[in-house]
Amino acid sequence: QKHYPADAHVTYAGKAFFCKAVAEWIHRQGLWADCTGEGEIRMALMGGLRRESIVAHGVNKSSDDLLAALQHAGTVVADNLTELRKISALRQANPGGTLPDIWLRLLPGVAVATHHVHTQTGQHGSKFGMTPEELVEAVRFCRQQDLPVSGLHFHQGSNFRDPAPLVSAIRLAVELTSEIALGNQWHLCPGGGWSVAYHESELPQPDMDAYVRVISQTITRSCKDSGLPLPYLHIEPGRSLIARAGVALYRVGTVKRRPEGTWILVDGGMADNPRHALYGSRYSCLPVTHPEREPNEPVSIAGPFCESGDVLIEGLPLPRLDEADLLAIPASGAYQLSMSSNYNGARRPAVVWIARGRARLVIRRETFADLSDRDLSLS
Amino acid sequence: QKHYPADAHVTYAGKAFFCKAVAEWIHRQGLWADCTGEGEIRMALMGGLRRESIVAHGVNKSSDDLLAALQHAGTVVADNLTELRKISALRQANPGGTLPDIWLRLLPGVAVATHHVHTQTGQHGSKFGMTPEELVEAVRFCRQQDLPVSGLHFHQGSNFRDPAPLVSAIRLAVELTSEIALGNQWHLCPGGGWSVAYHESELPQPDMDAYVRVISQTITRSCKDSGLPLPYLHIEPGRSLIARAGVALYRVGTVKRRPEGTWILVDGGMADNPRHALYGSRYSCLPVTHPEREPNEPVSIAGPFCESGDVLIEGLPLPRLDEADLLAIPASGAYQLSMSSNYNGARRPAVVWIARGRARLVIRRETFADLSDRDLSLS
Repeated sequence: QKHYPADAHVTYAGKAFFCKAVAEWIHRQGLWADCTGEGEIRMALMGGLRRESIVAHGVNKSSDDLLAALQHAGTVVADNLTELRKISALRQANPGGTLPDIWLRLLPGVAVATHHVHTQTGQHGSKFGMTPEELVEAVRFCRQQDLPVSGLHFHQGSNFRDPAPLVSAIRLAVELTSEIALGNQWHLCPGGGWSVAYHESELPQPDMDAYVRVISQTITRSCKDSGLPLPYLHIEPGRSLIARAGVALYRVGTVKRRPEGTWILVDGGMADNPRHALYGSRYSCLPVTHPEREPNEPVSIAGPFCESGDVLIEGLPLPRLDEADLLAIPASGAYQLSMSSNYNGARRPAVVWIARGRARLVIRRETFADLSDRDLSLS
Repeated sequence: QKHYPADAHVTYAGKAFFCKAVAEWIHRQGLWADCTGEGEIRMALMGGLRRESIVAHGVNKSSDDLLAALQHAGTVVADNLTELRKISALRQANPGGTLPDIWLRLLPGVAVATHHVHTQTGQHGSKFGMTPEELVEAVRFCRQQDLPVSGLHFHQGSNFRDPAPLVSAIRLAVELTSEIALGNQWHLCPGGGWSVAYHESELPQPDMDAYVRVISQTITRSCKDSGLPLPYLHIEPGRSLIARAGVALYRVGTVKRRPEGTWILVDGGMADNPRHALYGSRYSCLPVTHPEREPNEPVSIAGPFCESGDVLIEGLPLPRLDEADLLAIPASGAYQLSMSSNYNGARRPAVVWIARGRARLVIRRETFADLSDRDLSLS
């Protein structure tokens, strides 16, 4: 806010981690919620979020997703022309309702520096969004159909810490806006994806101030150059708001000390946190009891799942650990439980919310009955 | 059976895909079930499987897993000495019950040719099982505690099609058996992991006959050399039994045709099938309508999830596809739904069982209510 001379707003990215309590917290904080599809829109409603605070996202929204967005969202970020055609058809089938604001998702052709296969999204050839040519065609369609286009969105990737690639993408978005003439009250959202430090070697924490400054300055300059009014600025942090709020607790089951290295096997892994298996993510951790002890042994920490990729941490020096010890892995709040599974019959863990010295259960642990709740008999 | 001159049995690996209907089918077929942890043991019981058909597996079993195994399994495959200590303690706390047979999991130090990070399990330094030295110590412990050790198990990796590495692992297991003297009635289980073809380029299907022949001949020769009686042979196919039984259906949402390539965006992806994201797995697919049409366009098929890694197929030539078309991806029965998640608020899909012209719903689709079933309010 201190960097940007016009209106700005923060939208929490539900995909990082969403549940009723998080939706309630977003509502209390006055944030908006970025919701992918009908599932996350419904979660936002459960938390008490109102229409104007719900932004409907997604790269391939179904008609059901779009119907939920028309009914409940204040803003829909259209990824492609098909979605706009579906919105138009839904409106014709049900005329007279309030239409959300429509923003268009631009594929800027510039990615950020992050995992190249998995978490870059803005590069040339990406499945996300519209090329500038496609976007111009989409604007034409919206005007023909009287759909209220009022903003541009783009997202260049997740878990990056160098804001430089934002500059050319913002410039492109502002130039396009000048071409498609969004009017005096327009919205610009350069997405989210700002990183956090997961491991000591990644400290200091990525500089959120620098991130916002680059965005603000680039928008301000580009608008001045193009003679455009400043847009309402939106940013969509998910990871940088929630990752460090989460600490995962694991209990040591067994320790395998061998000449070639030590395995600490704990009671969770790729089913509750697939990030190492998916992206080779690095984490740090501490023993809960006497964490101040000197590390004296490099260990690898793995889970109980029947897969060699079920590893949480490789080669981290730790104080001696034994069976039944508890381990804490910080920075476990984002993109872990939101991708959790029941692999090997695992029950998804409980989540406890700790604030001002008070602990509250906000997600109960899954039961064995839950695991077969959807099953029907063959006979 | 035709290759092995003594008793042999097939144990279905529940981790590949398990639900009540699959457990019922295993029971009807007279197979045993390889169950990882208490969750899969309970699923086996729901399918009507009896104690003697339940094999309790897992690399880091909790006391609860082991208690469930003692109560319900005919066989426990102990991964490490800690588990044997826990079994001994559980028995002392509750004397008089029937003890399952105990097999020991050997780490053979020889892996098969498959994905080196994720699905090899038998290599030197793996988190799984016991080194020969650890195993000899475990046998000593079992004899002190009067625990009935009657077999050896090992598993070298998943999704391999060259049986050659089995030879040295089987020889090692037989030599060890001769050293630890398991008696005249002993069990040997060289695990599972036999592959299937996922893509036309992987045809012909891996030769199951050759796999069984290598196992049988190697056991027969090694036992003859060591003067041992032939063991009761167990194999644990999961993938090779269930992968090709599953066909995943997806509906096209939108098509992005661009000079650099075509994206077909469908209504599922990494949340219901994370195999491409995890292992870069290759699949093939066909349009459901007029699949016989000539392929005329190489396309990539991706899902609606907010991640570039959410891809199902890259660069596959297909006949022209349009919005609302249905696609079928064969060989989708193993390690897909068993690892599925609710990422981006996705509901896990329904499963329909088709046999003899009859279709039955065996897993109902997840509902939005299911997604917040475990959530509690912050207030």
